[in-house]
Amino acid sequence: MTKPLIQIALDQTNLPSALEVARRVESFVDIIEVGTILAFADGMNAVSTLRQLHPEHILVCDMKTTDGGAILARMAYEAGADWITVSAAAHIATIGACKKVADEFNGEIQIEIYGNWTMEDAKAWVDLGITQAIYHRSRDAELAGVGWTDADIEKMRQLSELGLELSITGGIVPQDIYLFAGINAKAFIAGRALAGEKGQETAEALKTEINRFWG
Amino acid sequence: MTKPLIQIALDQTNLPSALEVARRVESFVDIIEVGTILAFADGMNAVSTLRQLHPEHILVCDMKTTDGGAILARMAYEAGADWITVSAAAHIATIGACKKVADEFNGEIQIEIYGNWTMEDAKAWVDLGITQAIYHRSRDAELAGVGWTDADIEKMRQLSELGLELSITGGIVPQDIYLFAGINAKAFIAGRALAGEKGQETAEALKTEINRFWG
Repeated sequence: MTKPLIQIALDQTNLPSALEVARRVESFVDIIEVGTILAFADGMNAVSTLRQLHPEHILVCDMKTTDGGAILARMAYEAGADWITVSAAAHIATIGACKKVADEFNGEIQIEIYGNWTMEDAKAWVDLGITQAIYHRSRDAELAGVGWTDADIEKMRQLSELGLELSITGGIVPQDIYLFAGINAKAFIAGRALAGEKGQETAEALKTEINRFWG
Repeated sequence: MTKPLIQIALDQTNLPSALEVARRVESFVDIIEVGTILAFADGMNAVSTLRQLHPEHILVCDMKTTDGGAILARMAYEAGADWITVSAAAHIATIGACKKVADEFNGEIQIEIYGNWTMEDAKAWVDLGITQAIYHRSRDAELAGVGWTDADIEKMRQLSELGLELSITGGIVPQDIYLFAGINAKAFIAGRALAGEKGQETAEALKTEINRFWG
């Protein structure tokens, strides 16, 4: 199991603010994500600008692709994304279409887990050659005060056992990292927690916890 | 039951091509949709430009919102959208957040039906005050040759009975319109079929069929 990486989600509603955050965090994050909000705000220009300014980082375009997979995937990879997200609610044909384009670009796709998915669905993703998924509390569920549950952790373990590397997000704080011990965690994703004044401190605290549990 | 409208989905990968299509079809469509592809290509600039050029049309932003509902909804309504789409896979808190912003702008939201949804989910949407949903064959499913089934029509009838107006899409052709008779259809959505050389002819054939079945 490799050590989980740290990912910043850029969810600003305009590109200049996002670029400023990216510049501030680049030394202590491994992965830069063009969040859905930023991607809808500025389009693929956000991806290509961040690619140009941060050539060494892994760049994710969080499209939560649900349909029109081949075209959306191509747009994002051509703009410079390394990984794109695809919604768990997408038809399996859409997921397959994305995977095919990803392979062409040596890119990867991450299944973003939302809605009433099943472990059968997850097996179908793995059968397509998918190796990554994103597990999270919805931003809005988080705002509604819904925390990490034993059921969440159990599902993560099962997905992990199917062979999926998981990126974990939704109000991630250093003191919660122990919850995910033993899970094949690809990355921990945060936005404001890393973008703020104490961002570097938070990233270091996350890394300390990661080293404790994925030593 | 009101007569179904005709909606063009603009899914071009760049704004100039989309504007050209919109200009060509404006006289025979009621609703202009900034498709997910176009919205990701050019961002909210696509919405505000189309709003400016087509002030009298209903303008939809097809975001398939899955999370971060309040921010995405606000972005789209501020750019001039009348309606936005929200994924059926979104957490109910996300759908509620979108609805709240919609109300503030006198906008509407359309639940875009994807994934393993249930009629219980649909009831929860209606309880939130949602009045519209989009039912379709996935673009990729359509490419894979999956047609309209009796199960599709039955689900549409049930959604209709719950009080949802349905916009129907996925390879819509005039000769299929009779399939949807009796359903509370808000609009029929097409892209290439309306954008092409025979677009006006197709729109007229659609309207003839609509008049037959929603007379």
